[in-house]
Amino acid sequence: MAAEKELVKLLDFWASPFGQRCRIALAEKGVEYESKEENLSEKSQLLLKYNPIHKKIPVLLHAGRPVCESLIIIQYIDEVWPGNAAILPSDPYARAQARFWADYVDKKVYDSGFRLWKLNGEEEQREAKKEFIQIMKILEEELGDKKYFGGETFGLVDIALVPFTSLFYSYEVYSGLNVERECPKIAEWGKRCMERESVAKTLQDPVKICEFAGIFMKKIRAAD
Amino acid sequence: MAAEKELVKLLDFWASPFGQRCRIALAEKGVEYESKEENLSEKSQLLLKYNPIHKKIPVLLHAGRPVCESLIIIQYIDEVWPGNAAILPSDPYARAQARFWADYVDKKVYDSGFRLWKLNGEEEQREAKKEFIQIMKILEEELGDKKYFGGETFGLVDIALVPFTSLFYSYEVYSGLNVERECPKIAEWGKRCMERESVAKTLQDPVKICEFAGIFMKKIRAAD
Repeated sequence: MAAEKELVKLLDFWASPFGQRCRIALAEKGVEYESKEENLSEKSQLLLKYNPIHKKIPVLLHAGRPVCESLIIIQYIDEVWPGNAAILPSDPYARAQARFWADYVDKKVYDSGFRLWKLNGEEEQREAKKEFIQIMKILEEELGDKKYFGGETFGLVDIALVPFTSLFYSYEVYSGLNVERECPKIAEWGKRCMERESVAKTLQDPVKICEFAGIFMKKIRAAD
Repeated sequence: MAAEKELVKLLDFWASPFGQRCRIALAEKGVEYESKEENLSEKSQLLLKYNPIHKKIPVLLHAGRPVCESLIIIQYIDEVWPGNAAILPSDPYARAQARFWADYVDKKVYDSGFRLWKLNGEEEQREAKKEFIQIMKILEEELGDKKYFGGETFGLVDIALVPFTSLFYSYEVYSGLNVERECPKIAEWGKRCMERESVAKTLQDPVKICEFAGIFMKKIRAAD
């Protein structure tokens, strides 16, 4: 009964960078949990019940109570299981900086990457590539010569951004943009993150992600 | 010298709901600070230096170091001056809930309110009003019969939302939407918040906000 009370579940979708963020955070903390794969074309009653506002994965269920929005979930995980590797630094200024850059990733990277998947003519593609490179260059500058975004310790910004590295191959296939060539420091950082077990066991095969992106965009175009 | 080191400055703009959030948080904590009013048509070198990424107010400068994005600033204030009234609750689940609803306000209220200011034909106005009411009804349901969003204690969600109450009059003038009539519990909650000194001394005169909105929208239309 005590175990049931403390049960951790994650409503998730394998290819989602936001879902992968939560999986990495849970792995960093060594938290055992049950994963519930959602069919996003036909959302479950469970998802609609626990995230009635946004109706989106990931949702973390802890002792039956839902937490939504990936960056909020990660902070919750960090606060509930503080003993293991800290995800946010303890210094308030460093915490604010971590939140700022994680928020920047949230506001910029997914939408801009989405535009790379679209095949909307040469001019639009060129604009989309330029925009994506600008965003990644800003992140690259922030990273600088540090090991991770927060310095020596793997943390919030790394977790927020690293799932997107498994989308880089799809960006190249659909738009011709080679992120690794444009942003070599980001590429090296991505490889460094992959040396962590939490990341290596979570990130999805870039080829599978690329196939998924093709199917996903076809559906979106059909619905337009 | 010690005083200089700890100096708090706020790069701000009087009518901004995001700037007002920071002013309320600083007032709740009793933090003395210097305010620097920005001209948003001609941004200062100071603003561009301290928020080169988004180039937006508010920016909190603490001992010369910038913190950007209003919700991140509020959490920073809460962590740096923890002694006085806590803005975030101590329980991790309650903290996650506060972050979720503050994020909801951020994602929904400003943009939807902005559409109310636009006078783009009857059909679009009707849609904009419907959308805004839906958002406020969701917030009203979350508030329920509680004194504040977090219960008995004035906190993050209250601070995030309350500056928008001084925009309600402008919404009525420009779109005919009477938020107080549609969402009486939100109206009552707004009045309760106004009983706090931190809010009463911060919120701007709705008539002045309305005049400002008129000038602002004219500029935007001229630039379109």
